Amino acid sequence: MRIDVLTLFPEMFAGVFGSSILGKAQDKGIVSLNTLNFRDFANNKHNTVDDTPYGGGGGMVLKAEPIFGAVEHLLEGRAGSEAGERSPRIILMCPQGRPFSQEIARELAAEEHLIFICGHYEGYDERIREYLVTDELSVGDYVLTGGELPAMVVTDAVVRLLPGTLGNEQSAVADSFSDGLLEYPHYTRPAEFRGWKVPDALLSGHHAEIEKWRRRQSLERTLARRPELLERAELTGEERAWLDGLRTERENSAKESR
Amino acid sequence: MRIDVLTLFPEMFAGVFGSSILGKAQDKGIVSLNTLNFRDFANNKHNTVDDTPYGGGGGMVLKAEPIFGAVEHLLEGRAGSEAGERSPRIILMCPQGRPFSQEIARELAAEEHLIFICGHYEGYDERIREYLVTDELSVGDYVLTGGELPAMVVTDAVVRLLPGTLGNEQSAVADSFSDGLLEYPHYTRPAEFRGWKVPDALLSGHHAEIEKWRRRQSLERTLARRPELLERAELTGEERAWLDGLRTERENSAKESR
Repeated sequence: MRIDVLTLFPEMFAGVFGSSILGKAQDKGIVSLNTLNFRDFANNKHNTVDDTPYGGGGGMVLKAEPIFGAVEHLLEGRAGSEAGERSPRIILMCPQGRPFSQEIARELAAEEHLIFICGHYEGYDERIREYLVTDELSVGDYVLTGGELPAMVVTDAVVRLLPGTLGNEQSAVADSFSDGLLEYPHYTRPAEFRGWKVPDALLSGHHAEIEKWRRRQSLERTLARRPELLERAELTGEERAWLDGLRTERENSAKESR
Repeated sequence: MRIDVLTLFPEMFAGVFGSSILGKAQDKGIVSLNTLNFRDFANNKHNTVDDTPYGGGGGMVLKAEPIFGAVEHLLEGRAGSEAGERSPRIILMCPQGRPFSQEIARELAAEEHLIFICGHYEGYDERIREYLVTDELSVGDYVLTGGELPAMVVTDAVVRLLPGTLGNEQSAVADSFSDGLLEYPHYTRPAEFRGWKVPDALLSGHHAEIEKWRRRQSLERTLARRPELLERAELTGEERAWLDGLRTERENSAKESR
């Protein structure tokens, strides 16, 4: 896979793209991560990439031309590419985009080439949205300074899904999210730390008991913290009944405490 | 404000903490951003920070001791601090956490000291959750390699809210999110780019007409992309009626196309 990031702040990416899993995935030849400063495609005297908005108001707006120019430069590089190769996904990082999810990460991991466009405090000229990009993504409902951190987040989520990126140990941890529930609690040595002990079930050595404890902890934590996730989770009839019991119990104790 | 990040990968942070708004906020003395490698607090021969989980299963689990040690080291540094200073928020970045939002960013921006704990592919020993941290945060429902990018995301969202961080031009853009709707489209020069024109309303020069166009575009985009946001948005009666009309129109055209 090839990933290109269009940004005015390429220096933000070195530490993240060079370390840990992303660095290793590049060393193994699984992915090539590149940044491109679209200021180099501003065809004007002062290398201006933004301008005031039509209709007035505060803030600046990123001009269409440098972004179109940078993307087309990347596409030209593909001129000699093999027939049948898929077109790149051109992804605008913005708060108005589709909320990024693990499902979208899996979808993007099947692509050959991703191009991220990162604005920085400004808005984007709407013609970029309408006539250039294939996707708009948002990583969450909070305001960030630019699209750089969101592009790193999506890159990390996608690259770790590519075959060969993760070792077996690490992928096992990832898989524990796949059932749609929050993870159960983990414990490691020492068995007692400052008087706080590891639950007996985990020390029992009984595989079935451990599995049951973990599953119930997952269910209980999901009910307490993110009940909306339970609607889409795959549960047995017995588990649903157990959760109903837990809900009733909590409602009753809430009533009593009033 | 002081922000400390506990991580095994401090080199990931330099580019992000040193650039743009975060770099400038440090230069202005508004915030101090620091990283601390908790491997330095592993009191064992091989500087081990993780171990296999009790109860078996794949993956590794971060041990309680190095994390407690690193946090306590930071708290000791506060021994000579002024009376009445608030205790730091100790924030674990994890997928099981409270979903991070702009509301939580505003809440954290009122604090004096934040400590982020970032794990990396592993789980955390549950005793860290139960007896050390004050908050657990998740930036979204996707799987990342570690808590480092999430800690950068939260840091960026919080620091840009601190008084003095943003210039006037930039904060104006940020304010446009505060009504709970998605932003309206922006346009800047040229008025025609490759045959694609800026909408007439924005070129009209009539302030009221521009405002009306922008507001309706915001409403329309929010209805199309994130209808659930409309439930919490502040709308006039006229706007609600207009949106109802738009919804009916879309439903009818959807029926006709069947």
